[in-house]
This record gives sequence, C-alpha cells and structure tokens, in this order.
Amino acid sequence: MAVNETERRAMTRALDLAALGPRGVNPQVGAVILSPDGSVLSEGWHQGAGTPHAEVDALSKLAPGAARGATAVVTLEPCNHTGRTGPCALALIEAGVARVVYALDDPGEVSGGGAERLRAAGVSVDSGEQAETAHAIIDGWLTAQHLGRPHVTVKWAQSLDGRAAASDGTSQWITGPVARADVHRRRSLADAIVVGTGTVRADDPSLTARDGETLYAHQPVPVVIGARPTPDDAAIRRHPHPPIFHDTHDLSAVLADLHERGIQSVFVEGGPTLASAFVAAGLADRVLVYLAPVLLGGDRLALTDIGVASIGGAHRLTIDEWVPLGNDLLAVAHPAPDADPSTPAPTGSPTEPRTEEGVA
Amino acid sequence: MAVNETERRAMTRALDLAALGPRGVNPQVGAVILSPDGSVLSEGWHQGAGTPHAEVDALSKLAPGAARGATAVVTLEPCNHTGRTGPCALALIEAGVARVVYALDDPGEVSGGGAERLRAAGVSVDSGEQAETAHAIIDGWLTAQHLGRPHVTVKWAQSLDGRAAASDGTSQWITGPVARADVHRRRSLADAIVVGTGTVRADDPSLTARDGETLYAHQPVPVVIGARPTPDDAAIRRHPHPPIFHDTHDLSAVLADLHERGIQSVFVEGGPTLASAFVAAGLADRVLVYLAPVLLGGDRLALTDIGVASIGGAHRLTIDEWVPLGNDLLAVAHPAPDADPSTPAPTGSPTEPRTEEGVA
Repeated sequence: MAVNETERRAMTRALDLAALGPRGVNPQVGAVILSPDGSVLSEGWHQGAGTPHAEVDALSKLAPGAARGATAVVTLEPCNHTGRTGPCALALIEAGVARVVYALDDPGEVSGGGAERLRAAGVSVDSGEQAETAHAIIDGWLTAQHLGRPHVTVKWAQSLDGRAAASDGTSQWITGPVARADVHRRRSLADAIVVGTGTVRADDPSLTARDGETLYAHQPVPVVIGARPTPDDAAIRRHPHPPIFHDTHDLSAVLADLHERGIQSVFVEGGPTLASAFVAAGLADRVLVYLAPVLLGGDRLALTDIGVASIGGAHRLTIDEWVPLGNDLLAVAHPAPDADPSTPAPTGSPTEPRTEEGVA
Repeated sequence: MAVNETERRAMTRALDLAALGPRGVNPQVGAVILSPDGSVLSEGWHQGAGTPHAEVDALSKLAPGAARGATAVVTLEPCNHTGRTGPCALALIEAGVARVVYALDDPGEVSGGGAERLRAAGVSVDSGEQAETAHAIIDGWLTAQHLGRPHVTVKWAQSLDGRAAASDGTSQWITGPVARADVHRRRSLADAIVVGTGTVRADDPSLTARDGETLYAHQPVPVVIGARPTPDDAAIRRHPHPPIFHDTHDLSAVLADLHERGIQSVFVEGGPTLASAFVAAGLADRVLVYLAPVLLGGDRLALTDIGVASIGGAHRLTIDEWVPLGNDLLAVAHPAPDADPSTPAPTGSPTEPRTEEGVA
C-alpha cells in the first residue's frame, strides 16, 4: 500500500529525530510509532553505539501491547542483526507492529535483510519515503561503511610550482586569507584532523577550526601520527578534544582505529611526508590543493615521493572543481577511475620527444 | 588644425602599408604624401633595417620639388635621428612638406623629437590620429623597445604537484590534446622559440608550430642555448628557419643578440634548468604553466632552483587568466608588482606555525 499523508508527516518528524543523534559508529536514525488511526504513540532515536536503536527506543516508551497493529515509521531499514542490541526487525514483529515505513535500505551485509524478515512475518512494508533526506543525514556513515574506513581528504597548500615553503622553511602567507578561511571551514566539517609529529613539533598548530577568531561549533578531533613525542606544552594539547596519538606508520591501522571510534571523515593536513604517504597508499579519497600564484623553486616540496616510477603509474585525478579564492586557486579532486576514457593511455618511452608531445 | 577626412583616409591607408613591412629591429611604418588639394602623390613603407624609412620611401617616388606644400601622413612620429638612414624630420623639411599628420609618438630617446623639429621649421603637425591601430601593429616592437630586449614568455607543463615527468623521465600525455594545441598556437605567435641543448638531445623536438599536422604560416626561429653540440640529424635542423646556436649561459647576452636580430618575442620551452634560469634572472615577462590533473611526486621538477632563500624573496605572480583546456588548466601570469597591495608582506619566521597560518 502507498505511503499516506500521516506517514509522510511522521517520516519528516523521524528525520528530525535522527539528526539529534551523534555521528559515530552507527548511523543516525529516528523512529515514530503511529497508532492504527494515525496518532503518534511514541518517538525514538539512536543516541550512539551501545544504546538502543531508534525503533527499540520508541517501542520502549510504550506499555506492553500498545504497539499491536501500529505503524513504525523509521528513517533506515530496521536491522536484522544481533549486535550489542537485538535485531530491530524482530523487536517490531514481537511488538505486533502491522506496518513499517522506512526511508533508506540498510547497506550493511550483516545488518541488512530486515525488510524481508518483516514481510515474511506478514508485516506490510514500504520503503523509499524521503530517502534523499535520510541519505543526506547519514551520508558520512554510508561512505565510511562503503570504504570500510573513514573518508580521507588530503589537503595541502603550495606554490604554483609545488613547493610548501621556501628553502629556509618560511611559508607564511603563501596563500591568502580567503584560502585560509576556506581551510578552516572545511576542517569544521571533518570528524578528525590528522597531522604528523614533524608538523606538530615544527609548527605547533592548534588544529582548531576557526571562523576568524571564533571557534566553529564543531571541532575535528586532532590525531597525531608518528614516533616522536608531542611536547607537553604543545598547542594541540589545549584543543577542545583531547588528541589521539598513533605511534605508527601503518596508516591503515590508524584509519581502522578511527573507524572503530565512529570517525567517518578525516582531514589530513600534513606535512608533506604524511600527505605523500596517504597519496602513495591510495588512501586519499579527495585531494584539496590550494595553489598560490607564486614561484619558489628549491627543495621544500609539497609532495615528496608517492611511488610513481613511470608515467603509466601516475596518480590521475578528476577535478571536481577549480575554486578561485582571492588570488589563490583551490583544486578539489578525487582519484580518476582507472579507465578514464578522456585520458589516452600512456604510450611514451623516455627516449621519445617530451617537449613537443609529452609535457607540452 | 584638426585632422580632416582626407587625412583620416590617408592614415587608414598608411596603416595598411605599415603592416606590409617585416617585424624586426625597426618598427613597421607606413606613409602617404597628399598634395595640397588632397590627392595622393605617393605611398611608402619601411621594408626592414637598412632600407629607407617610410617617409623617405614615399618621398623618393616623387620628382624633385613635387612635395612642396604637401601633407605627409605617417603612422609613427618622423624620426629625428641619423642611423643607417638620415632623420626623416629633416628629409620632410627639406622636401618642403607643409604639414605632417602622424599616429603614434616615437618612444625612442634617440629617435624621438621629430615633431618638435618639424614645428620649429614651421611645419604644421597633428598627432594621435588612429593611434590605437598604429599601436597594435607595432606592439611587439614597442614592448621590446621598452624592455631593451625581446619580450620573454617562459612556458612549462607540469603535474599538479609541479613535476615535469615521472622518475624514469617519461612524461607523455601529462597534458591533453587541447593544452598541446594551445602551446602550438602560442608558439606561432612568437618570433623565436628557445630551448636548452639538454632538451634537444633528450627529446629531439622539431620546434615547429603546428595546427594538427599543418605548419602554421608563421614559424618561430629556433634558438638553442648551451655548450653541448646538437646532433647533425636533430629534427631541429629540418626546421623552416635555420636554428641559432648560443654556446653560453649568459641569458642577457642571448637576448641582446636576438634583439639585434629584430626578434621581439621569445617563447622559452625548457627544459626545467633553462626555465628556472630565466625565472631566477627575472627575465620571465610572462609565465605560462600548463597544469595537468595528475600527481607524480619524485625528483623530476618542472622548476628547480630559482634562487629563493626565504619566502620574502618569492617570485610572486599576478594571474591574468586561468584557462581551462580540456582536463588541464593553464595559468597565464606575469611578475607581480613589487608592492602588490593584495599580497600581505611576509611576516613569518621558520619557527612560526606553518600548517595553520602559512601554508593553509
């Protein structure tokens, strides 16, 4: 049967409830229980790993038997999996719910299948209602699920010729204020901000996300990778979130740990060695390059070695956007698909003309 | 007195005549001699260094005394300088010309002053008629006069991270076909194309300007800088123009020689050492950077050392245009004025935060 107007309004409410929950290991989900005549019996939402799922939260607020013949309106397909909580599909069946309306299918291999189980138990099920909004709310979680780790943005700023600093290490104001403000805004959208110990020791960054002098409401958790100790008086220790330290060069292990902590997106801010390591490992899902209209030359490279021996192994990018930022330009890019038809396969050898056919 | 309609038409004709002359050490100039009643007595134009100037060319076609009381319409202020030919101002006075209408003032310190000399001799002088068109015709010459050498464009193609090639030297198809076509078109607009011997030996480029398979009508003269010999069978030796070889690293000397040959614009095409030398010497009047959406890392830098020790010494650029070319992006830039108000003065030291305030 089609979703009716009452159910539609209930879904809008359930989406609002979902957004109340924290981003984390589990998706943000909301639920509304409607009586057969369409009045709201109870509401619930998921409040983080280890707490009841939204459907169970809503059912728990009802007297035994009160959900018999009711309709559960949920933003995500009820799970079919026993984790720290039992499967929601079963809880709904056992509560006597007659109908379930949900927005998005559960993409989990383990947790999926709830709709099938509900139908098998004779429950009427409709899906897809306001799916787009539901998707937007848990977009980061879905991406992290798909990747099996947090989504990684690697960001650096460079001179037009690819340098992060002049020969003596000075780099102040390579990029301008508009570009720097853009970095802070993007930081505030990430769950974590990752730097190497070298950067912490050399630059003593605070790693907060600031709108002018003001801290953004959301602050990324600072993560420091590397063996060298972080000084006790480092600015990062005064960050609103206690830093996470990883004394390892195993980036996958770091990302796995962050994934387990419910971190869905990380923003890698350098230095060059760490950025190069993420790119070389194929772990850069998105690349942000802030290009300043300046030439520096010298040996302070923004990217060092990324394991490309020959042009065929180049890390080809698809540019999503070139964003002018004051005098600077931001390249927003992601790895190009392997068989990008717009990119001719490399056919050259080192002895063939470069000036004319290759580089030019 | 104001320029009349007949003189105006004569100037349009003189500009057409000017364009017939070759670009070279001297500007392209045209002249028309009008009788007192406005009929055309003769026409002339400058046909290259060592040949008569336009005014003298036009006068030479007249019987003695025929120019008495006439009006000379010239695209450039008649010169006041004895070079390989005598001063045109004097020639006009001696021929009895009563009036001179010209378009552009002569910018030369030595050759200027002709208008003053004419007026002192009682000749009526008007200037500025169709000056913009006259300027466009000799724009390259004016720029070279102003610089005291040819105008220099330094062009290179690079990966987003500033590499000219992968570690093994391969670089085929870093940039795409649209970018390469743009390079050829721009080559065809230059008087000379300059490369280092290393590039000639490594890449064996033909250095022609091609529209697909077809040669452009105008071909830049190839110039090779460096001590190592160019092989007898090098493609460059089959260029429509015989190459000019300069066994020197003194770029100013090379430019002085090209200036003396009447070359007004050069296009420096590499390799990285030569491009870096031009930038380091402050001899790059325009920079063209073709950016390909690819990351390479490694040690094949598009620019090497350009003598920047600290950020305060950075070569700051003003971007005239970011030009999308297929998947690539072209930065058209020129050196920023020393005191560009939009660029805050560098205030940093190597110990101040880089990640947060500088590079970001």
